[in-house]
This record gives sequence, structure tokens and C-alpha cells, in this order.
Amino acid sequence: MNLHEYSDAVTHELNKALNQIDPKSVDRMIEALEGADEIFVCGAGRSGFMARAFTMRLMHMGRKVYLVGETVTPNLRQSDVLVVCSGSGETKSLVSMAQKAKSLDAKVVLVTINPESTIGKLADVCVRINAPSPKAAKEGDLKSIQPMGNLFEQSLLLYLDICVMLMMEKKNLTGSEMFTRHANLE
Amino acid sequence: MNLHEYSDAVTHELNKALNQIDPKSVDRMIEALEGADEIFVCGAGRSGFMARAFTMRLMHMGRKVYLVGETVTPNLRQSDVLVVCSGSGETKSLVSMAQKAKSLDAKVVLVTINPESTIGKLADVCVRINAPSPKAAKEGDLKSIQPMGNLFEQSLLLYLDICVMLMMEKKNLTGSEMFTRHANLE
Amino acid sequence: MNLHEYSDAVTHELNKALNQIDPKSVDRMIEALEGADEIFVCGAGRSGFMARAFTMRLMHMGRKVYLVGETVTPNLRQSDVLVVCSGSGETKSLVSMAQKAKSLDAKVVLVTINPESTIGKLADVCVRINAPSPKAAKEGDLKSIQPMGNLFEQSLLLYLDICVMLMMEKKNLTGSEMFTRHANLE
Amino acid sequence: MNLHEYSDAVTHELNKALNQIDPKSVDRMIEALEGADEIFVCGAGRSGFMARAFTMRLMHMGRKVYLVGETVTPNLRQSDVLVVCSGSGETKSLVSMAQKAKSLDAKVVLVTINPESTIGKLADVCVRINAPSPKAAKEGDLKSIQPMGNLFEQSLLLYLDICVMLMMEKKNLTGSEMFTRHANLE
Repeated sequence: MNLHEYSDAVTHELNKALNQIDPKSVDRMIEALEGADEIFVCGAGRSGFMARAFTMRLMHMGRKVYLVGETVTPNLRQSDVLVVCSGSGETKSLVSMAQKAKSLDAKVVLVTINPESTIGKLADVCVRINAPSPKAAKEGDLKSIQPMGNLFEQSLLLYLDICVMLMMEKKNLTGSEMFTRHANLE
Repeated sequence: MNLHEYSDAVTHELNKALNQIDPKSVDRMIEALEGADEIFVCGAGRSGFMARAFTMRLMHMGRKVYLVGETVTPNLRQSDVLVVCSGSGETKSLVSMAQKAKSLDAKVVLVTINPESTIGKLADVCVRINAPSPKAAKEGDLKSIQPMGNLFEQSLLLYLDICVMLMMEKKNLTGSEMFTRHANLE
Repeated sequence: MNLHEYSDAVTHELNKALNQIDPKSVDRMIEALEGADEIFVCGAGRSGFMARAFTMRLMHMGRKVYLVGETVTPNLRQSDVLVVCSGSGETKSLVSMAQKAKSLDAKVVLVTINPESTIGKLADVCVRINAPSPKAAKEGDLKSIQPMGNLFEQSLLLYLDICVMLMMEKKNLTGSEMFTRHANLE
Repeated sequence: MNLHEYSDAVTHELNKALNQIDPKSVDRMIEALEGADEIFVCGAGRSGFMARAFTMRLMHMGRKVYLVGETVTPNLRQSDVLVVCSGSGETKSLVSMAQKAKSLDAKVVLVTINPESTIGKLADVCVRINAPSPKAAKEGDLKSIQPMGNLFEQSLLLYLDICVMLMMEKKNLTGSEMFTRHANLE
């Protein structure tokens, strides 16, 4: 396949994956984010990079938000929410974080391929992305021409970016207003 | 707009942006990557997170690759290539890196909205993604419903993932082989 | 030399370096930190890791503090302070940040071997640590048995930790109070 | 206390802590590092920043070394060693990593306050630093005027830097040779 054949195939896969997300689960995720005092986000590997892209936009929106593991991240409290991005829902370090968050009575939101995973079972809100995973015990039924977790990770980025747009609409926030909070020391 | 309307609009924008990339520039980028001893990758902000996702896949392919700024990143040498991911092509820290790389006679590849930028002018290879940028002096002519640099950053991820698939094909590499190099201490 | 001979030599070097720091420059640094709305910290390489250790303690103290380059770091404003940790005072990316901060009329504090450096010349407050640097044009006159920037980086950590203790005393803050803000999702 | 009183007190504490490290445990740690194919290093919070400073010096020495969690870190194999930096020896994410490493028959080295901890019990080599910990069940008997884990973290940096010097001596490596591998894109 060449560049443009891949472009068509990949965007077609993404369109299909995104259209299979349950809008009700998205409403519940946005409600959890809006009801939280502070938002903590975590993810490992490439899902972790997509989690960071989401975290940065939440900061641009003016939210108090932290990436678990970064220098300035304080303690999570009961009034906070933990957003976990994990295809398998079984990544060891993320399981520990979700368990700790629940032990503190904080809300846990999971974006995953696998809602029946360990984290899925203890999450308050679960958004399912239907994509194949090299790690999940039970793979999604959607086939992909892409290697490893590509389709999940790409769908995750687009889904989280759409979440931000849905929240912006509700608050009448524009991109230009958000841009004023963009880092200026790069 | 609701979730599924956004899903359609975003994947449509991405399809259009990816199909405007010049395949010849992609061939030159892949040639530069394949001809390099070691690959160094850099990017700031959300583009930097997409750069990391690419870096990780190159590691999975078995390449010697580094993200500029990470702990184990050594000195760049003449036989290496620096891949810069920058919508504007003007980010101060990235301009310094590209200049330093050229002063060492290493190759520079830029993926950007703006090939006429400072980095664009000194790059050996320039891959243009046609997307609006909140920072670029001269914006792309493609309109987007998305805020800030979203369309560029998303296109960047998909484009770099397609690059990996094009290189995998040439080497007859499968996702399963690459998965054996996936971090196992998460 | 063996372990305990090195232990004595290194702690002796550190004692000497710390005792050569000008207490008046430290008072000015603490004044700048206490007068700032938000604190931004930056540093490259090993000095950057020491900068992060400082940033984390300022967060434990309850200060609004950011590490330049991390996901949640917003825009710096006039009422903020930028703390730069740089042995040479000439690191390209840090010079850009210091210049940008001054262009916004924010305060710049530098901890360095080399107060006559580019960053030193534009900084509002300069704390000098007398240690050899492999990069500085003009090396400190203190000799060290240690390689590369070791003595500067170690002195930097200890100096910044002492700064925190001096600020804790002024605010009657205890370690136990600070520990309540310690990350609990590790 | 003022700056210079703190300087004396802190360096005195460090001298005492370093002199209580068992040289035989250090020999075993160096042997494990020298016998390993690749070295993986991990740590959380401020101990993690000290772990990074060590990782960078090992890279400067020309070793294949990775920080767990960074972009280019591949899979750990049986012939590798995992160095864990953890005051308490009980940090959840680090316990998972040490267990995984042992399940792959790789060697685990722990630098800790608490050798009787979960990680201490499964480590092949344990280097004890005698310092108080806010998290350890059983605190060290050394008192410190410093808050939280300061004395451990500072001792950790100095101890790891001394390890590097001991290894440099054995290989007749100089700081100038190591400096040639120093990142040149900062």
C-alpha cells in the first residue's frame, strides 16, 4: 500500500471506531470531569502520550489538571477524578493507581478496549473504544490493518480531543481564549 | 455538534489533510531515516507527544532512536538524522536544535505546516501537512472546525504511524515481531 | 580511592562550595520566590533533575509551581518568576527562556557557576556556586576530584534544599504538613 | 539556622550517612552492573530524579542504559539488571517492576533505607543508606534536621555518583572522554 491508500484506510478505521463509542458513556465521562475538583490523568506507553495531549488541553481550558508521575502532581483527594487511558485495562502500574483512587473514594474514569478488565470493573465510568489490542485477553471484534495498539491510540487521541470540544461548547470557550494559556517558554 | 457528528467531521478533515501530503517528500523522509546511523526526534507541546509516539515505534522496529531531552540521549553525530516536528517551524528551542544539527553536518527532517519557516529553510527534507496553526505567520489554506493546533497534531500522529507502516513493509517486519521489544516493566 | 575515601572527599568539597555562596544573594532569591505569583523552574541535563527535585518541594510547600516543558505548565506572566539552573549560564534553550521571561517583564533568578554568562547578565538575581564546569568558558577556581559537572549539580541540590528549609522556617511549615501534599498515586 | 549553619549540618549528615554504607554491598552492586548486558533504572518522586542523574552518567560511560518509563526503553531480558532506587522499598509501581524483573530471571539491585522491605526481600543486591524516611515502616536510626526524604535522596545522589567514579577508575575512564557523549542538542 502507498501513502494515500494508507491515509484512506486509517481514517476509515478511525471513523468506524469513533462511531461505535456509546454517546451515553461520553456524557457520563464529561459529567465526572465537570463535577471534579481536580483532574488526574494517567496512561502508559503511547496511550500515555495521548493522555498527555488531553491533559494539556484541559490545562488550556483553565482546569486544575495533573499528569500522574509529573513533578508538580500533588496528592489525589476524594473530590478529584482519575482518568485512566489503558487499552488492556490491565497495566500493572495503572491498576495500582485506580485501586488507590477508589480507596480514597475518588471517581475513576477508564477509556479502554476492554471494559471487563480489572480497571474496568472498579471504574465509575467506562468509555469503550472498539479496537484490537496486542495485550488484551479479549480483543475487540474490529479488525485493523495497523500494527500493535495503533488504532486504539489514534482513536484515543481523537476521542479525547472531541471530548474537549464538547466541553468547550458547553462553556462557550473558544480556541483563542484557550491559546492565551499556551506555554510561552518553549 | 454531538459525538458522532464530530467523529465524522474530524476524520473527514484528517483524510483531506493526509491526502494533501506530497508522496515524494515522504519517500525522501524515509530515505533519510533509513540512511541514518541513529535517529534523534524532537518536538514541543502536543506535537512533542506525537513525536514520542513515533520514537517509540522506531524503537519497536529495532532502530537506535532517541528523543531529544530524555535522560539517555547522547550526542548527535554527522551520520545521524534529526527529525523535527513543528507546526510553525519557528519554536525557539527547536530552531536551536536544527541549527546545531546542521552545524554538525547531520541531516534534518522537518514535518510542518510551514515549509518556509526558519527550520524549513535549513532542513534537508520537509514534509508539509496542510493544516491551520495558531502560531504560524502564514496559515495553511485548509479550514478546520477544531481549536488550536489539533488538526496538525492529529495528522502528525497518523502520518508518522503511516511512515512506520511503509518502513515495515520494506523490511517485511510484522507487528508481532515489533511487540517483542515492547516495554515489559510498565 | 575507595568508597569511604570518596565519601569524605565529596562531602568536604560540598561543604566548601556551599560555604562560598553569598548569603545576600540567597536572601534576594528567597524574596523573589516569595514575591512571585507563580514559580517556573527550568534546567537541562542533570541540573534539570536537581531543578525538578526543588520544584517538587515547592509544590509540597503549597506553592503554585511549574517545571518548564511539563504537560500542565501554562504561560508565564509578568507577576511570575523564572528560576534557571545552569552551570554555564549559556545553555541555548535556557537562554531563550530567560530572554522570553525578561521580555514579559517577569523576574529571572539564576543559580550558576558563571554569573557573567548570557543568562547571568539578564537575571535579576544571581546565586553563584563556586564549582568547575566542563562547559563554562571561565571555570570556577575551586578544584574537584569529580568528573564533569558533578560538584555543581550536587551543590545545586543541597543549596536548593537549604533554600526550602529557610522558607519553611519563615512560614513555620513542618515536613509532616508538607508530606500531606506528597503524591499518593505512585 | 542560617545558610552556612545549614550547609555545615547537611554536609555533616551526608558524611555520616555515606560512611555507614557497607562497602561489600557496593562491590556487589558494581559487579551486578558490570555483569549486565543492559541496565534499567527506576525510582519514583525525588529518588527518581536522582536515579535519572545516575542513568545519564552511565550513558556518558558508554553503557546501554534505560530509565523505566522513558520513550525509548525496550523490554528487559534475563541478561539485564534492574536498579531500583526506593527509600521505603514499598512503592507500588516499583514493587511491580522488581517482581516482573525477577519473573524474567533478571538481577535486581535495590538502594534503600529499608532492606527488609518487599523489594529488599526479592533483590539480589541491597545497598542500605541509613536515613529517616517519612514512608518506611521501620525508620533508620539516623536523625536528620531535614524534612521528608531529603537525607536519603541527597545521599542517594552522592552514593550513585561515587559508584560511577569507582567504575571509572576500574576502566581508566576520564571525565573528558565521558563528556564527548554529553547531549549536544540542549
